[in-house]
Amino acid sequence: MKQVFLFFTALFLFVSVHAQEKLMGFTDAHATKQLDWEKQFDGLIKASNQDEWMKFLSSHPHHVGSPQDKANAEYIANLLRSWGYQTEIASYYPLFPTPKTRMLEIVGDKTYKPKLQESAIAGDKTTGQYSEQLPTYNAYSADGDVTAELVFVNRGVPADYEELERMGVSVKGKIVIAKYGGSWRGIKPKVAYEHGAIGCIIYSDPADDGYVQGDIYPEGPFKPKDGVQRGSVMDMPVYPGDPLTPDVGATKDAKRLDRKDAVTIMKIPVLPISYADAQPLLQLLKGQVAPPSWRGGLPITYHVGPSTEKVHLKLEFNWDKKQLYDVIAKMPGNELPDEWVIRGNHHDGWVNGAADPLSGLVAELEEARAISELVKKGYQPKRTIVFCAWDGEEPALLGSTEWVEDHQQELKQKAVIYINSDGNGRGFIGASGSHTLEPFFNQVADDVMDPQTGVSIKERHYARTMVRADAAMRSKMLGNKNIKLGALGAGSDYSSFLQHLGIASMDIGFGGEDPGGEYHSIYDSYDLFTKFKDPGFQYGVALSKTAGRITMRMADADVLPMNFNSFYKTVNDYVGEVKTLLDNSRNETETDNKMINEKLFVLAHDPTKTYVPPTIKGLVPFLNFSDLENAMVQLKDASAEYEKLYSKATQLSAEKENQLNDVLYKAERSLINPDGLPRRSWYKHEIYAPGYYTGYGVKTLPGIREAIEQRNWKEAQDNIEVVTKVIKAYTDQVNAAIVLMK
Amino acid sequence: MKQVFLFFTALFLFVSVHAQEKLMGFTDAHATKQLDWEKQFDGLIKASNQDEWMKFLSSHPHHVGSPQDKANAEYIANLLRSWGYQTEIASYYPLFPTPKTRMLEIVGDKTYKPKLQESAIAGDKTTGQYSEQLPTYNAYSADGDVTAELVFVNRGVPADYEELERMGVSVKGKIVIAKYGGSWRGIKPKVAYEHGAIGCIIYSDPADDGYVQGDIYPEGPFKPKDGVQRGSVMDMPVYPGDPLTPDVGATKDAKRLDRKDAVTIMKIPVLPISYADAQPLLQLLKGQVAPPSWRGGLPITYHVGPSTEKVHLKLEFNWDKKQLYDVIAKMPGNELPDEWVIRGNHHDGWVNGAADPLSGLVAELEEARAISELVKKGYQPKRTIVFCAWDGEEPALLGSTEWVEDHQQELKQKAVIYINSDGNGRGFIGASGSHTLEPFFNQVADDVMDPQTGVSIKERHYARTMVRADAAMRSKMLGNKNIKLGALGAGSDYSSFLQHLGIASMDIGFGGEDPGGEYHSIYDSYDLFTKFKDPGFQYGVALSKTAGRITMRMADADVLPMNFNSFYKTVNDYVGEVKTLLDNSRNETETDNKMINEKLFVLAHDPTKTYVPPTIKGLVPFLNFSDLENAMVQLKDASAEYEKLYSKATQLSAEKENQLNDVLYKAERSLINPDGLPRRSWYKHEIYAPGYYTGYGVKTLPGIREAIEQRNWKEAQDNIEVVTKVIKAYTDQVNAAIVLMK
Repeated sequence: MKQVFLFFTALFLFVSVHAQEKLMGFTDAHATKQLDWEKQFDGLIKASNQDEWMKFLSSHPHHVGSPQDKANAEYIANLLRSWGYQTEIASYYPLFPTPKTRMLEIVGDKTYKPKLQESAIAGDKTTGQYSEQLPTYNAYSADGDVTAELVFVNRGVPADYEELERMGVSVKGKIVIAKYGGSWRGIKPKVAYEHGAIGCIIYSDPADDGYVQGDIYPEGPFKPKDGVQRGSVMDMPVYPGDPLTPDVGATKDAKRLDRKDAVTIMKIPVLPISYADAQPLLQLLKGQVAPPSWRGGLPITYHVGPSTEKVHLKLEFNWDKKQLYDVIAKMPGNELPDEWVIRGNHHDGWVNGAADPLSGLVAELEEARAISELVKKGYQPKRTIVFCAWDGEEPALLGSTEWVEDHQQELKQKAVIYINSDGNGRGFIGASGSHTLEPFFNQVADDVMDPQTGVSIKERHYARTMVRADAAMRSKMLGNKNIKLGALGAGSDYSSFLQHLGIASMDIGFGGEDPGGEYHSIYDSYDLFTKFKDPGFQYGVALSKTAGRITMRMADADVLPMNFNSFYKTVNDYVGEVKTLLDNSRNETETDNKMINEKLFVLAHDPTKTYVPPTIKGLVPFLNFSDLENAMVQLKDASAEYEKLYSKATQLSAEKENQLNDVLYKAERSLINPDGLPRRSWYKHEIYAPGYYTGYGVKTLPGIREAIEQRNWKEAQDNIEVVTKVIKAYTDQVNAAIVLMK
Repeated sequence: MKQVFLFFTALFLFVSVHAQEKLMGFTDAHATKQLDWEKQFDGLIKASNQDEWMKFLSSHPHHVGSPQDKANAEYIANLLRSWGYQTEIASYYPLFPTPKTRMLEIVGDKTYKPKLQESAIAGDKTTGQYSEQLPTYNAYSADGDVTAELVFVNRGVPADYEELERMGVSVKGKIVIAKYGGSWRGIKPKVAYEHGAIGCIIYSDPADDGYVQGDIYPEGPFKPKDGVQRGSVMDMPVYPGDPLTPDVGATKDAKRLDRKDAVTIMKIPVLPISYADAQPLLQLLKGQVAPPSWRGGLPITYHVGPSTEKVHLKLEFNWDKKQLYDVIAKMPGNELPDEWVIRGNHHDGWVNGAADPLSGLVAELEEARAISELVKKGYQPKRTIVFCAWDGEEPALLGSTEWVEDHQQELKQKAVIYINSDGNGRGFIGASGSHTLEPFFNQVADDVMDPQTGVSIKERHYARTMVRADAAMRSKMLGNKNIKLGALGAGSDYSSFLQHLGIASMDIGFGGEDPGGEYHSIYDSYDLFTKFKDPGFQYGVALSKTAGRITMRMADADVLPMNFNSFYKTVNDYVGEVKTLLDNSRNETETDNKMINEKLFVLAHDPTKTYVPPTIKGLVPFLNFSDLENAMVQLKDASAEYEKLYSKATQLSAEKENQLNDVLYKAERSLINPDGLPRRSWYKHEIYAPGYYTGYGVKTLPGIREAIEQRNWKEAQDNIEVVTKVIKAYTDQVNAAIVLMK
């Protein structure tokens, strides 16, 4: 019964939406045809295929260098080949360290026996494959043998060290212990090292993904006491990919740096541990009680330390190069074969990797299969569709980065869009990407139905946004169903496409009703996934339908569905944000300095506890934003004019249309600054970058924003001019499009 | 060295403040004399006396009905008598239940053995006095023998039941388990009963005052695993004091209600337990995982329940009347003996009660001793000073309420002010009270030095307020050192003075650097207090100096230091608040109703979990605030005029001055509505009351505010008119003062 109900609801919405709105970038005739192909596409998507593929692909650990990693690549390539795709496996040879020695002890304490080993779960078919599993470790940690007192640094981000400084605690010469979360994990040892620490332990607190959040595996999906999050700690905010071959593909004979010159490898040893192993270490800590927001869910009093006892951490790695297997499969376009619509997801996992990454990968494979079925029925994509299954994403986005670096000239010419997914689960659509794509994406989201409720994924997203908002925001937002795209930071394979080359990108996936503690552990298994994260692959199917639509519409559009207005509005908000950031910083500095002079910080603190007040800061100057603001006005006008003309663009001659398309997809390239961002030239996009001190967390207008945050006023002013330049170049592209459309 | 430094700082501030500002209500000549007496008073205050008295008074449990309770009253009376005070012990005979049977078990589970008993701590001299301690219980629980499934209700306030309703969980016929905190404890069983629960267990979560907050006793002051918070659960927001004698003193022959007609006694059995005893109960709970804000610090997943297992709770009490011993000591005024300045603190404790209440009581005793020493040197208070040591505060403000009810006619005539304290510790001044007293109190706070930092307690309060504020607030507040008085709700002995009779009141104490988990447990001992809460009684001395100054200045002022402007401003803010509350409620209702109609709440929730959406609410009307707003303008003008005239008031003739004083201290009486608040006529003050559903938490303009919260629009409108009436009557008093001053 439910199935029937869903079907009618879907039909009804289908009609109501398209009665009033054309398909962006399609003539009416082409739109009708396209929607028919999409309907057939939906009908072809099968959960059972995703289930079958995940079962195979997650049957053994399949990290970089494992037999199953290669086997999976071949399995994927064979599938794609069997569906008629021009398929190849592209190999690269990056540095990929694996552990040789992992030793952690409390000096002189024979009772502390850290397991450093996750425990198999009865009833889970793969958690017991000990001999095939990578041990729990952080890739690109330094080798090291250190003995020192322990200090608790909360999340280990710069603000935490400021707070420690206030408490008079230094980590110089100490080993720090940090909680996972709050930043990309690689930030923790990097910032620890910057503050003089000689070792770093990272643990998963039960408050974050253990029993505090819900029942632990196998009763629920949360982290059991021995669970450990593996993961890379490479300094990817400087550059991702092989540490030895920045900017170029790590081919067999590529020129390589000496390992000692590779700045993205950590300078100190780093080890991730479970909360069971962490508790005795945390109980060693003396000193002040940790601030409330630092405390976790263990049944102890969290102190900041240092400890009186010393801790001994010894780590050694095999510093080997490993072969990567990127699967690249093409379906050539019949009209514009040199315009590529690229769809990707990685295939390597840290262990069995069911949720991460196979849940997204099997959805992608099903898209590829369904499109191949459509082709059998006569469907021909106008542009070339490229399906990619990346290897080595987990260690450092290795597979995608090396492939993109290797093919950068071709990609700059041909890549129209890169559409990424990664782990996927039950819940709500999440979407980030280049903001020119926002209206286009919203049209797609209107047409995909949520499998649990029968409304569109856009309606459901709107419902959650409204319910999560506070009362004041609710009344403002009521009726505004637009899905605001997030800005892309780092964390998956879109990084090199967008941030190194300036290829418009999207990252999509479902989630929010699939929380768990299995991430990067042996518990990320087929059994856990199918029980807790997406039973029946309902959201695997929804992902196929969403990403498949994006892929097909981008591949087939008469005129590419780019909207500069939505880009303008978003960037204009960013400009407002950095101005406010500067103003707030100025006001706060002034007030804080007065408070310091009046000794208010000291007077407010308990004199029986060490407290070191902050010191006077230099005043914050006014900066000249006028060039940028004037440039934004130009962009605003051009974007508005473009939008007016766009509805008639499909009536252009074929030649003009082709010229227009070329301008449209290359517009994003003009946001690239060839010199790159300050101190990290690999990152060249002036609008979006991962934060230098947050990692995953995006920094928009990164050149300006991070300079203000770091109080580097000269650099901030310089970067305002850099951004002005790219905004002008971008506006030139919009104007070029306008000329073609007139 | 430090001592010398403090002395000079104090002198410097002393001069700087008074060079520019007269002492409110004193002629210049009298001010000079008064400040000299205060200086001598400060010199007399000795920490060693407070230490000695606390040691004796806390040497044995001294709850109502215990031998030590009576012995302490006699000890206090003897001290006061020996210092020359006219001292009596006033006795009342209220109902005071003590436990006969306390039984808690999981049905069919032989392994659950709740201790229901706190453990003695080695090295603490009194925690082992088991035979003298009251068992852990909640006074005024019902007798009961109930067996049912368990449901976790978070703090057990109405909002928690709304959330349970959303989760489809009913407590009807169930036993609830609630965390301490978030409301006056008596709210929990009251609201549970209103929702159909048949029993209530309250436990102390370690996240609130156990190991999450800091080291547990004896390493630190926080609650050990067996620690239990005793306490009253009487429905005091309806009326405090003896449940059998509302409105009248519980004298031997007072007319008493039948126990079954006493509405303030709980209708269901209630038992407080430790977190060690609570954990196995919480682990029984099934159902949804508790919302994040509900979860505590135990190493378990908190579920809301219900449990499948049943819990059996059996409680029986001795429903005896017990004799109270209020100590009342008078030092008659030499000019205005019929104007009373009343200073009080209770003396009964739940067990040894070192912090609560003896830390405040010994400060008060030292004030009384120092004043008696001044009298020997020639000091004579102008008005009568009354020192009170109340019995039976813990069960239900018994001693103060019965005394005030018994003496209400005399007090209405004579009481100028009631100055209360209770537990006291290291840290910052905290002060609440009638807002006419705010400028006066601020002048006192300028003159008392913080013992740890050498700046005034006002400066230190300002420092903390600034440091705690967010950046936006800091720049607004910079330089505004005024201590804003809190509004008085409930929780100590000022209640009957202020809220039943309309006597201007203050409640003061130091704290904030003395947190702990000893409250109402056997761990509130002399040893814990002197180690962790106020070592050396530094803040006991500071409290004596603060409360002593308030007492002496009020007793000696030529013209009482009342300021109506500060009252006007505060109440005008309250009027703004209730208007905003109504407007927000209107807007939220409108938005929520639309969201309900669009099914957004349902669509936003996980369909695999039970979710019951809220139902459509009636629209919120506009109410007529104009009468009240017009009355506020009248008060504003009168207050401004009064303030202009006040500086010359000390030049009036003695007769006019006396008439003026009479008007000034009786002004607060006009805020009394003889009919009382809706559904709780004992509470008669129209500006301040404890919240009907929060207990401790004050509700200002309670008649209006609670009616709006309960969506009773008719009652809200009626109460706007009631408040208008009292504001007009109050303004008449201000105008009467103006006439006298002209």
